[in-house]
Amino acid sequence: MRVLGVDPGLTRCGVGVVEGVPGAPLTLVHVGVIRTDADLDQAERLLLIEQGLERILEEFSPEAVAVERVFAQHNVSTVIGTAQAAGVAMLCGARRGLPVATHTPSEAKAAITGSGRADKAQVTLMVTRLLRLSAAPKPADAADALALAICHVWRGGAQARLAAARRGTGGRR
Amino acid sequence: MRVLGVDPGLTRCGVGVVEGVPGAPLTLVHVGVIRTDADLDQAERLLLIEQGLERILEEFSPEAVAVERVFAQHNVSTVIGTAQAAGVAMLCGARRGLPVATHTPSEAKAAITGSGRADKAQVTLMVTRLLRLSAAPKPADAADALALAICHVWRGGAQARLAAARRGTGGRR
Repeated sequence: MRVLGVDPGLTRCGVGVVEGVPGAPLTLVHVGVIRTDADLDQAERLLLIEQGLERILEEFSPEAVAVERVFAQHNVSTVIGTAQAAGVAMLCGARRGLPVATHTPSEAKAAITGSGRADKAQVTLMVTRLLRLSAAPKPADAADALALAICHVWRGGAQARLAAARRGTGGRR
Repeated sequence: MRVLGVDPGLTRCGVGVVEGVPGAPLTLVHVGVIRTDADLDQAERLLLIEQGLERILEEFSPEAVAVERVFAQHNVSTVIGTAQAAGVAMLCGARRGLPVATHTPSEAKAAITGSGRADKAQVTLMVTRLLRLSAAPKPADAADALALAICHVWRGGAQARLAAARRGTGGRR
Protein backbone atom coordinates (compact mmCIF):
# COMPACT_ATOMS: atom_id res chain seq x y z
CA MET A 1 0.00 0.00 0.00
CA ARG A 2 1.44 3.34 -1.06
CA VAL A 3 0.34 6.34 1.00
CA LEU A 4 0.84 10.08 0.58
CA GLY A 5 1.06 11.83 3.95
CA VAL A 6 0.46 15.58 4.04
CA ASP A 7 1.42 17.90 6.88
CA PRO A 8 -0.60 20.89 5.70
CA GLY A 9 0.55 24.50 5.78
CA LEU A 10 0.49 27.51 3.48
CA THR A 11 4.15 28.45 3.93
CA ARG A 12 5.45 24.90 4.18
CA CYS A 13 3.34 21.91 3.24
CA GLY A 14 5.18 18.68 4.08
CA VAL A 15 4.64 15.72 1.79
CA GLY A 16 5.86 12.14 2.22
CA VAL A 17 5.13 9.01 0.24
CA VAL A 18 5.65 5.68 1.98
CA GLU A 19 5.08 2.16 0.79
CA GLY A 20 4.36 -0.77 3.06
CA VAL A 21 1.90 -3.08 4.72
CA PRO A 22 1.32 -3.59 8.44
CA GLY A 23 3.94 -5.88 9.96
CA ALA A 24 6.54 -5.58 7.21
CA PRO A 25 9.40 -3.11 6.64
CA LEU A 26 8.40 0.25 5.16
CA THR A 27 9.97 1.99 2.18
CA LEU A 28 10.47 5.71 1.62
CA VAL A 29 9.25 6.64 -1.85
CA HIS A 30 9.41 10.42 -1.73
CA VAL A 31 9.79 13.24 0.75
CA GLY A 32 9.56 16.97 0.17
CA VAL A 33 8.05 20.30 1.10
CA ILE A 34 5.84 22.52 -1.03
CA ARG A 35 6.70 26.10 -0.14
CA THR A 36 4.73 29.20 -1.04
CA ASP A 37 5.73 32.81 -0.64
CA ALA A 38 3.86 34.75 2.06
CA ASP A 39 3.82 37.78 -0.29
CA LEU A 40 1.48 36.01 -2.70
CA ASP A 41 -2.31 36.20 -2.52
CA GLN A 42 -3.87 33.41 -0.47
CA ALA A 43 -5.65 32.11 -3.60
CA GLU A 44 -2.37 31.89 -5.52
CA ARG A 45 -0.73 30.08 -2.62
CA LEU A 46 -3.51 27.50 -2.58
CA LEU A 47 -3.10 27.08 -6.33
CA LEU A 48 0.66 26.46 -5.95
CA ILE A 49 -0.06 23.87 -3.26
CA GLU A 50 -2.57 22.17 -5.53
CA GLN A 51 -0.05 22.11 -8.39
CA GLY A 52 2.68 20.72 -6.12
CA LEU A 53 0.37 17.98 -4.81
CA GLU A 54 -0.84 17.14 -8.30
CA ARG A 55 2.75 16.62 -9.46
CA ILE A 56 3.39 14.22 -6.56
CA LEU A 57 0.13 12.31 -7.12
CA GLU A 58 0.97 12.06 -10.81
CA GLU A 59 4.56 10.95 -10.32
CA PHE A 60 4.19 8.56 -7.38
CA SER A 61 0.59 7.29 -7.75
CA PRO A 62 -0.24 6.74 -4.07
CA GLU A 63 -3.31 4.59 -3.34
CA ALA A 64 -4.43 6.66 -0.36
CA VAL A 65 -3.96 10.14 1.08
CA ALA A 66 -3.52 10.82 4.80
CA VAL A 67 -3.83 14.44 5.92
CA GLU A 68 -3.16 15.84 9.36
CA ARG A 69 -6.46 16.83 10.93
CA VAL A 70 -6.67 20.54 11.69
CA PHE A 71 -8.44 21.76 14.81
CA ALA A 72 -10.01 25.14 15.43
CA GLN A 73 -7.92 25.33 18.61
CA HIS A 74 -4.68 25.36 16.59
CA ASN A 75 -2.56 28.50 16.39
CA VAL A 76 -5.19 31.16 15.66
CA SER A 77 -2.96 33.19 13.34
CA THR A 78 -2.35 30.30 10.95
CA VAL A 79 -5.30 27.93 11.44
CA ILE A 80 -7.33 29.22 8.49
CA GLY A 81 -4.45 28.81 6.03
CA THR A 82 -3.55 25.42 7.48
CA ALA A 83 -7.17 24.25 7.20
CA GLN A 84 -7.32 25.46 3.60
CA ALA A 85 -4.07 23.72 2.65
CA ALA A 86 -5.45 20.52 4.25
CA GLY A 87 -8.67 21.01 2.30
CA VAL A 88 -6.75 21.29 -0.98
CA ALA A 89 -4.92 18.04 -0.19
CA MET A 90 -8.22 16.28 0.61
CA LEU A 91 -9.74 17.66 -2.59
CA CYS A 92 -6.81 16.46 -4.74
CA GLY A 93 -7.14 12.97 -3.30
CA ALA A 94 -10.94 12.84 -3.65
CA ARG A 95 -10.75 14.11 -7.24
CA ARG A 96 -8.68 11.06 -8.12
CA GLY A 97 -11.09 8.74 -6.32
CA LEU A 98 -8.48 7.95 -3.66
CA PRO A 99 -9.52 7.24 -0.09
CA VAL A 100 -8.67 10.27 2.03
CA ALA A 101 -8.18 9.94 5.77
CA THR A 102 -7.30 12.42 8.45
CA HIS A 103 -5.24 11.58 11.51
CA THR A 104 -4.50 13.84 14.44
CA PRO A 105 -0.89 14.71 15.30
CA SER A 106 -1.27 12.61 18.49
CA GLU A 107 -2.51 9.61 16.53
CA ALA A 108 0.49 9.82 14.20
CA LYS A 109 2.93 10.23 17.08
CA ALA A 110 1.35 7.40 19.05
CA ALA A 111 1.39 5.13 16.02
CA ILE A 112 5.12 5.48 15.45
CA THR A 113 6.58 6.23 18.89
CA GLY A 114 4.02 4.69 21.24
CA SER A 115 3.31 8.11 22.78
CA GLY A 116 0.88 10.75 21.55
CA ARG A 117 3.04 13.38 23.25
CA ALA A 118 6.36 12.48 21.65
CA ASP A 119 8.49 15.48 20.69
CA LYS A 120 9.75 16.34 17.20
CA ALA A 121 13.17 14.71 17.75
CA GLN A 122 11.56 11.42 18.80
CA VAL A 123 9.20 11.44 15.81
CA THR A 124 12.10 12.14 13.43
CA LEU A 125 14.18 9.39 15.03
CA MET A 126 11.41 6.81 14.66
CA VAL A 127 10.62 7.88 11.08
CA THR A 128 14.31 7.45 10.24
CA ARG A 129 14.40 4.04 11.92
CA LEU A 130 11.13 2.73 10.49
CA LEU A 131 12.09 3.75 6.96
CA ARG A 132 15.61 2.32 7.51
CA LEU A 133 17.24 5.58 6.41
CA SER A 134 20.92 6.21 7.08
CA ALA A 135 20.16 9.78 8.18
CA ALA A 136 17.12 11.79 9.27
CA PRO A 137 14.85 12.57 6.32
CA LYS A 138 15.40 15.93 4.70
CA PRO A 139 13.85 18.42 4.67
CA ALA A 140 13.20 18.00 8.40
CA ASP A 141 9.83 19.72 7.93
CA ALA A 142 8.58 16.67 6.15
CA ALA A 143 9.16 14.15 8.96
CA ASP A 144 5.60 14.79 10.17
CA ALA A 145 4.23 14.02 6.71
CA LEU A 146 6.12 10.71 6.71
CA ALA A 147 4.85 9.95 10.22
CA LEU A 148 1.29 10.48 8.97
CA ALA A 149 1.85 8.21 5.99
CA ILE A 150 3.29 5.48 8.24
CA CYS A 151 0.43 5.93 10.72
CA HIS A 152 -1.96 5.47 7.83
CA VAL A 153 -0.28 2.33 6.53
CA TRP A 154 -0.64 0.87 10.01
CA ARG A 155 -4.13 2.03 10.96
CA GLY A 156 -5.65 3.81 7.98
CA GLY A 157 -6.02 0.75 5.84
CA ALA A 158 -8.21 -0.87 8.46
CA GLN A 159 -10.26 2.32 8.81
CA ALA A 160 -10.80 2.51 5.05
CA ARG A 161 -12.00 -1.09 4.94
CA LEU A 162 -14.34 -0.42 7.86
CA ALA A 163 -15.75 2.68 6.17
CA ALA A 164 -16.24 0.78 2.92
CA ALA A 165 -18.01 -2.02 4.79
CA ARG A 166 -20.24 0.56 6.51
CA ARG A 167 -21.15 2.02 3.14
CA GLY A 168 -21.84 -1.53 2.02
CA THR A 169 -19.87 -0.94 -1.15
CA GLY A 170 -16.82 -3.05 -0.40
CA GLY A 171 -14.69 -0.21 -1.74
CA ARG A 172 -14.76 3.26 -3.14
CA ARG A 173 -14.76 2.38 -6.82
CA MET B 1 -18.06 43.63 -14.31
CA ARG B 2 -19.48 40.21 -13.50
CA VAL B 3 -18.68 38.91 -10.01
CA LEU B 4 -19.25 35.56 -8.33
CA GLY B 5 -19.85 35.98 -4.60
CA VAL B 6 -19.36 32.93 -2.38
CA ASP B 7 -20.69 32.56 1.17
CA PRO B 8 -18.64 29.48 2.07
CA GLY B 9 -19.90 26.51 4.02
CA LEU B 10 -19.70 22.73 3.82
CA THR B 11 -23.41 22.08 4.35
CA ARG B 12 -24.62 25.12 2.43
CA CYS B 13 -22.33 27.15 0.21
CA GLY B 14 -24.15 30.23 -1.09
CA VAL B 15 -23.30 31.43 -4.57
CA GLY B 16 -24.45 34.59 -6.33
CA VAL B 17 -23.43 36.12 -9.62
CA VAL B 18 -24.05 39.83 -10.11
CA GLU B 19 -23.24 42.11 -12.99
CA GLY B 20 -22.69 45.81 -12.68
CA VAL B 21 -20.37 48.76 -12.35
CA PRO B 22 -20.13 51.26 -9.51
CA GLY B 23 -22.81 53.93 -9.79
CA ALA B 24 -25.14 52.05 -12.14
CA PRO B 25 -28.01 49.59 -11.53
CA LEU B 26 -26.95 46.02 -10.79
CA THR B 27 -28.26 42.85 -12.43
CA LEU B 28 -28.81 39.44 -10.87
CA VAL B 29 -27.26 36.77 -13.10
CA HIS B 30 -27.55 33.71 -10.89
CA VAL B 31 -28.25 32.74 -7.33
CA GLY B 32 -28.07 29.33 -5.70
CA VAL B 33 -26.76 27.14 -2.92
CA ILE B 34 -24.41 24.18 -3.22
CA ARG B 35 -25.47 21.67 -0.57
CA THR B 36 -23.50 18.67 0.61
CA ASP B 37 -24.65 15.87 2.84
CA ALA B 38 -23.13 15.82 6.34
CA ASP B 39 -22.93 12.02 6.11
CA LEU B 40 -20.30 12.20 3.38
CA ASP B 41 -16.57 12.26 4.01
CA GLN B 42 -15.14 15.76 4.30
CA ALA B 43 -13.02 15.17 1.18
CA GLU B 44 -16.08 14.17 -0.88
CA ARG B 45 -17.96 17.23 0.33
CA LEU B 46 -15.10 19.48 -0.78
CA LEU B 47 -15.12 17.73 -4.14
CA LEU B 48 -18.88 18.34 -4.56
CA ILE B 49 -18.36 22.02 -3.72
CA GLU B 50 -15.57 22.24 -6.29
CA GLN B 51 -17.78 20.61 -8.92
CA GLY B 52 -20.68 22.95 -8.10
CA LEU B 53 -18.45 26.02 -8.31
CA GLU B 54 -16.86 24.81 -11.54
CA ARG B 55 -20.30 24.47 -13.14
CA ILE B 56 -21.15 28.06 -12.15
CA LEU B 57 -17.81 29.44 -13.35
CA GLU B 58 -18.26 27.57 -16.62
CA GLU B 59 -21.85 28.65 -17.19
CA PHE B 60 -21.71 32.29 -16.07
CA SER B 61 -18.05 33.24 -16.71
CA PRO B 62 -17.58 35.78 -13.92
CA GLU B 63 -14.55 38.05 -14.20
CA ALA B 64 -13.80 38.03 -10.47
CA VAL B 65 -14.52 35.93 -7.40
CA ALA B 66 -15.34 37.43 -4.00
CA VAL B 67 -15.27 35.06 -1.04
CA GLU B 68 -16.32 35.79 2.52
CA ARG B 69 -13.23 35.97 4.69
CA VAL B 70 -13.20 33.30 7.41
CA PHE B 71 -11.80 34.09 10.84
CA ALA B 72 -10.43 31.69 13.39
CA GLN B 73 -12.82 33.25 15.91
CA HIS B 74 -15.84 32.00 13.93
CA ASN B 75 -18.03 29.21 15.31
CA VAL B 76 -15.42 26.67 16.47
CA SER B 77 -17.45 23.62 15.45
CA THR B 78 -17.73 24.67 11.81
CA VAL B 79 -14.78 27.00 11.19
CA ILE B 80 -12.49 24.35 9.69
CA GLY B 81 -15.08 23.21 7.14
CA THR B 82 -16.03 26.81 6.35
CA ALA B 83 -12.36 27.74 5.84
CA GLN B 84 -11.89 24.74 3.56
CA ALA B 85 -14.97 25.55 1.48
CA ALA B 86 -13.66 29.14 1.16
CA GLY B 87 -10.26 27.73 0.14
CA VAL B 88 -11.85 25.63 -2.59
CA ALA B 89 -13.67 28.72 -3.94
CA MET B 90 -10.40 30.71 -3.93
CA LEU B 91 -8.61 27.84 -5.63
CA CYS B 92 -11.27 27.53 -8.37
CA GLY B 93 -10.97 31.25 -9.11
CA ALA B 94 -7.15 31.28 -9.08
CA ARG B 95 -7.03 28.23 -11.35
CA ARG B 96 -8.92 30.21 -13.98
CA GLY B 97 -6.63 33.21 -13.55
CA LEU B 98 -9.47 35.28 -12.07
CA PRO B 99 -8.78 37.89 -9.41
CA VAL B 100 -9.94 36.51 -6.06
CA ALA B 101 -10.79 38.86 -3.21
CA THR B 102 -12.02 38.26 0.30
CA HIS B 103 -14.36 40.59 2.12
CA THR B 104 -15.45 40.33 5.73
CA PRO B 105 -19.16 39.98 6.56
CA SER B 106 -19.04 43.49 8.06
CA GLU B 107 -17.53 44.93 4.89
CA ALA B 108 -20.28 43.35 2.79
CA LYS B 109 -23.01 44.54 5.16
CA ALA B 110 -21.55 48.04 5.36
CA ALA B 111 -21.23 48.24 1.58
CA ILE B 112 -24.88 47.52 0.93
CA THR B 113 -26.70 48.74 4.06
CA GLY B 114 -24.35 51.41 5.38
CA SER B 115 -23.89 49.45 8.62
CA GLY B 116 -21.43 46.65 9.33
CA ARG B 117 -23.82 45.36 11.99
CA ALA B 118 -26.94 45.10 9.82
CA ASP B 119 -29.06 42.03 10.49
CA LYS B 120 -29.99 39.33 7.98
CA ALA B 121 -33.39 40.87 7.18
CA GLN B 122 -31.81 44.23 6.38
CA VAL B 123 -29.15 42.62 4.15
CA THR B 124 -31.81 40.63 2.29
CA LEU B 125 -33.97 43.74 1.87
CA MET B 126 -31.10 45.75 0.41
CA VAL B 127 -29.98 42.90 -1.87
CA THR B 128 -33.58 42.67 -3.16
CA ARG B 129 -33.73 46.42 -3.70
CA LEU B 130 -30.29 46.84 -5.27
CA LEU B 131 -30.90 43.99 -7.71
CA ARG B 132 -34.42 45.36 -8.41
CA LEU B 133 -36.04 42.00 -7.67
CA SER B 134 -39.79 41.72 -7.14
CA ALA B 135 -39.23 39.40 -4.15
CA ALA B 136 -36.38 38.44 -1.82
CA PRO B 137 -33.83 36.22 -3.60
CA LYS B 138 -34.34 32.50 -3.10
CA PRO B 139 -32.86 30.50 -1.57
CA ALA B 140 -32.58 32.95 1.31
CA ASP B 141 -29.21 31.37 2.23
CA ALA B 142 -27.69 32.95 -0.83
CA ALA B 143 -28.48 36.58 0.02
CA ASP B 144 -25.08 36.84 1.72
CA ALA B 145 -23.34 35.60 -1.41
CA LEU B 146 -25.14 38.27 -3.45
CA ALA B 147 -24.20 40.90 -0.86
CA LEU B 148 -20.55 39.87 -1.24
CA ALA B 149 -20.73 40.09 -5.01
CA ILE B 150 -22.34 43.56 -4.83
CA CYS B 151 -19.75 44.65 -2.25
CA HIS B 152 -17.06 43.51 -4.65
CA VAL B 153 -18.52 45.33 -7.63
CA TRP B 154 -18.47 48.50 -5.55
CA ARG B 155 -15.14 48.18 -3.77
CA GLY B 156 -13.37 45.07 -5.03
CA GLY B 157 -12.65 46.41 -8.48
CA ALA B 158 -10.67 49.26 -6.97
CA GLN B 159 -8.80 46.86 -4.67
CA ALA B 160 -7.86 44.62 -7.56
CA ARG B 161 -6.51 47.57 -9.54
CA LEU B 162 -4.53 48.72 -6.50
CA ALA B 163 -3.06 45.24 -5.95
CA ALA B 164 -2.13 45.01 -9.63
CA ALA B 165 -0.47 48.43 -9.44
CA ARG B 166 1.45 47.34 -6.33
CA ARG B 167 2.69 44.27 -8.19
CA GLY B 168 3.65 46.60 -11.02
CA THR B 169 2.00 44.31 -13.51
CA GLY B 170 -1.01 46.41 -14.44
CA GLY B 171 -3.19 43.32 -14.21
CA ARG B 172 -3.22 39.63 -13.51
CA ARG B 173 -3.07 38.46 -17.09
